[in-house]
Amino acid sequence: MIKRYLHIDDWRIIEKGFHPDKQRASESIFALGNGRMGQRGHFEETYSSDSLQGSYLAGISFLDRTKVGWWKNGYPKFFARVPNAPDWSSIRLRLIDEELDLAVWDVDSYERTLDMKNGVATRVMEVTSPKGHQLHITIHHVLHMMEPDLCMIRMEVESINYTGKVSLIPYLNADVTHETSNYNEPMWNILRTEALVDHAYLWVQTRRERTQVCMSMGYEATCNGKPIPGGIQIEKEKQVGFSTGEYVKPGERIVLTKYAVITSSLYGHRTNLVDSSVAKLKKLMARGWDDLLHEHARYWSRIWYDTDVVIEGDPEAQQGIRFNIFQLHQSYQGRDSRLNIGAKGFTGEKYGGNTFWNTELCCLPYFMLSSRQYIAKNLLLYREQHLAKAISNAQTLGFKDGAALYPMVTINGEECHNEWEVTFEEVHRNSIIAYAIIQYVDTVGDTDYLLPEGFRVLVAICRFWAQRVSWADRHQKYMILGVTGPNEYENNVDNNWYTNFSAKQILLRTVSLLQEAAKNSPEAYESLCLETNYKSEEGEKWQYIADHMYEPYDKEWDIYLQQDGYQNKIMQTVDEIPEEELPINQHWSWDRILRSCFIKQSDVLLGMYLYREHFDLETVRRHYEFYAPKTVHESSLSLFVHCIIAARIGKIDEAYKHFMHATRLDLDDYNQEVHDGLHVTSMPGSWLALVHGFAGMHVRNRQLCFEPVLPSHWKKTQFTVNYLEHTLRVTISQKQMSFELLDSDPIRVYVNNQEVNCIKGEVATVDY
Amino acid sequence: MIKRYLHIDDWRIIEKGFHPDKQRASESIFALGNGRMGQRGHFEETYSSDSLQGSYLAGISFLDRTKVGWWKNGYPKFFARVPNAPDWSSIRLRLIDEELDLAVWDVDSYERTLDMKNGVATRVMEVTSPKGHQLHITIHHVLHMMEPDLCMIRMEVESINYTGKVSLIPYLNADVTHETSNYNEPMWNILRTEALVDHAYLWVQTRRERTQVCMSMGYEATCNGKPIPGGIQIEKEKQVGFSTGEYVKPGERIVLTKYAVITSSLYGHRTNLVDSSVAKLKKLMARGWDDLLHEHARYWSRIWYDTDVVIEGDPEAQQGIRFNIFQLHQSYQGRDSRLNIGAKGFTGEKYGGNTFWNTELCCLPYFMLSSRQYIAKNLLLYREQHLAKAISNAQTLGFKDGAALYPMVTINGEECHNEWEVTFEEVHRNSIIAYAIIQYVDTVGDTDYLLPEGFRVLVAICRFWAQRVSWADRHQKYMILGVTGPNEYENNVDNNWYTNFSAKQILLRTVSLLQEAAKNSPEAYESLCLETNYKSEEGEKWQYIADHMYEPYDKEWDIYLQQDGYQNKIMQTVDEIPEEELPINQHWSWDRILRSCFIKQSDVLLGMYLYREHFDLETVRRHYEFYAPKTVHESSLSLFVHCIIAARIGKIDEAYKHFMHATRLDLDDYNQEVHDGLHVTSMPGSWLALVHGFAGMHVRNRQLCFEPVLPSHWKKTQFTVNYLEHTLRVTISQKQMSFELLDSDPIRVYVNNQEVNCIKGEVATVDY
Repeated sequence: MIKRYLHIDDWRIIEKGFHPDKQRASESIFALGNGRMGQRGHFEETYSSDSLQGSYLAGISFLDRTKVGWWKNGYPKFFARVPNAPDWSSIRLRLIDEELDLAVWDVDSYERTLDMKNGVATRVMEVTSPKGHQLHITIHHVLHMMEPDLCMIRMEVESINYTGKVSLIPYLNADVTHETSNYNEPMWNILRTEALVDHAYLWVQTRRERTQVCMSMGYEATCNGKPIPGGIQIEKEKQVGFSTGEYVKPGERIVLTKYAVITSSLYGHRTNLVDSSVAKLKKLMARGWDDLLHEHARYWSRIWYDTDVVIEGDPEAQQGIRFNIFQLHQSYQGRDSRLNIGAKGFTGEKYGGNTFWNTELCCLPYFMLSSRQYIAKNLLLYREQHLAKAISNAQTLGFKDGAALYPMVTINGEECHNEWEVTFEEVHRNSIIAYAIIQYVDTVGDTDYLLPEGFRVLVAICRFWAQRVSWADRHQKYMILGVTGPNEYENNVDNNWYTNFSAKQILLRTVSLLQEAAKNSPEAYESLCLETNYKSEEGEKWQYIADHMYEPYDKEWDIYLQQDGYQNKIMQTVDEIPEEELPINQHWSWDRILRSCFIKQSDVLLGMYLYREHFDLETVRRHYEFYAPKTVHESSLSLFVHCIIAARIGKIDEAYKHFMHATRLDLDDYNQEVHDGLHVTSMPGSWLALVHGFAGMHVRNRQLCFEPVLPSHWKKTQFTVNYLEHTLRVTISQKQMSFELLDSDPIRVYVNNQEVNCIKGEVATVDY
Repeated sequence: MIKRYLHIDDWRIIEKGFHPDKQRASESIFALGNGRMGQRGHFEETYSSDSLQGSYLAGISFLDRTKVGWWKNGYPKFFARVPNAPDWSSIRLRLIDEELDLAVWDVDSYERTLDMKNGVATRVMEVTSPKGHQLHITIHHVLHMMEPDLCMIRMEVESINYTGKVSLIPYLNADVTHETSNYNEPMWNILRTEALVDHAYLWVQTRRERTQVCMSMGYEATCNGKPIPGGIQIEKEKQVGFSTGEYVKPGERIVLTKYAVITSSLYGHRTNLVDSSVAKLKKLMARGWDDLLHEHARYWSRIWYDTDVVIEGDPEAQQGIRFNIFQLHQSYQGRDSRLNIGAKGFTGEKYGGNTFWNTELCCLPYFMLSSRQYIAKNLLLYREQHLAKAISNAQTLGFKDGAALYPMVTINGEECHNEWEVTFEEVHRNSIIAYAIIQYVDTVGDTDYLLPEGFRVLVAICRFWAQRVSWADRHQKYMILGVTGPNEYENNVDNNWYTNFSAKQILLRTVSLLQEAAKNSPEAYESLCLETNYKSEEGEKWQYIADHMYEPYDKEWDIYLQQDGYQNKIMQTVDEIPEEELPINQHWSWDRILRSCFIKQSDVLLGMYLYREHFDLETVRRHYEFYAPKTVHESSLSLFVHCIIAARIGKIDEAYKHFMHATRLDLDDYNQEVHDGLHVTSMPGSWLALVHGFAGMHVRNRQLCFEPVLPSHWKKTQFTVNYLEHTLRVTISQKQMSFELLDSDPIRVYVNNQEVNCIKGEVATVDY
């Protein structure tokens, strides 16, 4: 049973009353970001109780020395992680001899809100100090979407019964720690701190990587609407800022607005990092709070215009899916191909800000189908830029001739994981990176991307597979030995079905795309062949391998097997596990998990989702019924796939259960781990679940098809989707489905095989 | 090709000329120990170049916090390791303004000798200081076997051309580091250091475990035979000792004898640790160098009387096997069942002084067959004392009802390893611990040991196997899924043949021994049943499991398989690996090793060695021919097994190659790793290889049988072996074999099926 402390609302996340026991969880939930940077919802003011202060800058990493029990050849020497950055949001609030601290003061009323429509986090509270002084405080917190170097906070303090001086101390704070570093090494060197009359700055550099960051800040303060003059500069070794304030009587009110601009050597020259940061600060401050806030909200409204999902009749689902969309767009704007999305976005230290295959499995399809085209393309370019490192990584592991193995976990293209069964063996990641390219070309229609960027990656990945397979003479088949599949609850297996099948499909599609390219763009194709040393015989070899790929299959059950030998396990179902032993990864020893039949996520169902066209309904049903009862869903990537498959085979109730689990995973903290951060990169899974699952959207023979199945209590759902040059606003109610074409040429779609012609300006409606 | 820098000699290891590039290797080779303590052959005097100073005290450990990349449930929180102890052997040598340091001084001549017959390490050298002062120095170093708290050093310094003061500074030095600690934490707290008129002491305590150690020292110094009076006390925070010396002219000679006594709270009360240490020091010093040295040599001569192996016609083999015997007896005396043998003995930090299954596989059979009975028994008691911890370990992993899983790596009975594929999965270790008990009872005839000690362990291990197997319905067999076999180059496999087969044999023999006990000792048996809650139905279940144990077998090859799926690998032979890629564990990534057909050691051959009676010659030959070419022997446990099997099937040349590799593994530094320490616990493998291999000794129907096959250039080999109540001195020449019964009743043995009657006082000789 879910015990919920947050309130349901269509557009807002609301915490009513202060929940100090949930502070770390709330810090994750109320995290803010703008793609360039982000931070957990730790308090601006001093808070002396449990909290994980965390501010993170995209693309800026610290190289932590790898820590393992037993070294294996090929492990990376350093483990890049996004370090906790100096905190730009700190504002202390002092009375004469007391300082605001919710761990010490009485919290008489408290409401914390995340306004997802406008991208603002707000706290409104009444507090009483130990000496009985009562204040009413409101804090608005914004990380600006349009000006991603800017963050701003407005703090309003009204005295209820207090007479005396209120001091507000806005500052930049480099006295922060990173909880999970390997050797407790400092991650930042401080180059300079300086407080001048109207601004202060903190100039720092990451150790080892030596990326420089300058944070500059200024503020405005008023008392009862009148500017407060003066203000004292504060300059310590690791902190810099100002102290301002005024004497107040009950009913009087101080408002402090703090602006901070963060620039880094990623986006500017080191030589004038400080100057440009301060110049930008001044320019933005001149525009003022209202104008900046308005621009920020307008940016969000554009995002929502593209991406909003309406679910009528299910406020919990409605809130959940908007939360997921909101958090994803906070984590990634898609403007800079050097960046990607950390598994926890900017919401925690866990996974070190690193990128996993979640990006290609969940985020990229979401962006491609819902958002502007450049976002998905920049995600592809990210991997394309890392190709040389992926080739070098494969070389380290003994591959040759330009074969590439992409890292399982990375920031900068280098492998950042060090568990051999993952680092070296979870090689299926290569396929989803290739799949993303192919899916992008198929869905967006941007075939230009293939020559040469896309093919560079596809060829290198096919070369990996062609070397990674091994010929099993007795079977007259190619096998892939010694892998870990997406189901990480089985390591070093032979012939994980998903790995084999997806490698086969990637080989086949690459060969066929190359053949098309040779025909359609012979010159560019020739130049690609020269560049990559590709010859058509190599493609023939790939075709041969694909045609002879072994797929573990059990005749008696008529089931594709997780891997060789799966049928020898004792078959059980998850409901046989005592509830107190769930999740098993927190209660069972690793060997027990491995030798059980229980799977973290179903690899076969994943394959049937990604390669839908290869599997008929009956096959899918049989496999769902076989694998679903054995799946513990201890991966956040499991649920949306199960939802989509369950919806396809008409198990709406199960689909809905998976959907809600996926959609409110963090809001309802199913796994008791939201304090570590949000599952940002699996959040778009809920969007995919709705669109591919309940709307049944898929492509068949290059035609967009829908097979809607709505949960019975939903009145309506609406979403917007891109396909080729088209953008469609799709609405589904219990019996009807309608399409509004937002731009471009007419398109014909199918609803349960009914043809629907969509023309701009008309709403096409069909019964289903 | 072996490049050898040590000289061949029957009874000595000799380094002629100083080899600073081999210093760490020499420190391992010239290491000394006496079972209670030991130390690497680092220099007594200051040496400012590369060196691994290491002194270790048996049974005294530091609990280092576990360091892993990704935590798994069940990992031990602490990793016990024998910490580098304060050094009791330091003696600085100073001239007026120079100090002896072989890294700086010219070494004009240098001979380092390890006299294995008498257990003395000696350096004789002529050195020239930077200022041209020449000295002749001799140093004898002894760790006393009879008085295992005592170590002593005699340093003789003769001036060749120097006139002036020679100072000798014998001291105890706690300013030492441990190279491979996890978090660079200090391992020792210093409780007190004190230098008095005639002795000094250092009183320390290990952090966390809080074992106390007191080292006390005294010295005698003479110049030209006359005692040197005076001597200055030196007392620093971490060092304590004396400075003595005299003015010398060319030809004059100073002799310093240093005595140190090390006592610990393992063997004495904390309250009078210092007093008892000092008292013992004084008592022993009163006896003087000559008497103590004589007693030490006499002790060694007793060991050699029992254990010496003669190999005539092969001085390299002769030296190697004596070195192995010498090092093993230095590492373990078998008097204290709380102690065991670290994988590197006292010769280095690697493996942290921990005990592996090598003890039961190699050391215990050697001691049992060659030495006094109490030694093997104490090794069994060691495990028996850890039974409760092994049961608790199994519980942590989800086993119940008194099932035990012994640790893979331990000092104190708790698991000290943290690689899931070993810690949780290399469960075959349980079988060798049971096997050792059974072998002990069969070979020594001490059936009393079974009731109750032996059975306690056997029952708990059988319970583990009975829970660890899983019923594979389709095969109607019990399988053992998710294990790592002795061949650690394959992880998380199903049905490692050795694991399954040995579990089956342990179950069968335990059931049959229990049935015998029920018949022969009904009272003791009843009491065992009460104590362990064992009922005969449980034994019936074990019998059923054993009768239905699955053994992976390939029909086409007629071969037992390493594990399920082994036949799907690409079959290659080791000679296809380019030489520069060997050893593969230093050149290949882990996944490449795992998915190759190459094995670290052959598990099937190991099973056929341990359970010889189950396999006919033809089967053994077939399996040797199949597995040997795929074996890279990157485990020190591999070679002796291959030697024994090769000898059995008449491949003498191969057997000899394996034998020499096993026998001179460290002396010739095959794996370029002797700098880390010696493979102490696999050293007795060479003895087993000779006795079970070339002598072909085995037991058939409780009769001792021999099938000798001597390398063609060997003139003769001789060894002594125990069987039941008998001790036989066995001599084998190219055509003849003879037996001298050293005590007890007559015994009949068989040489290639010829009956030989051995009677005390007669030498029975047969042609073969």
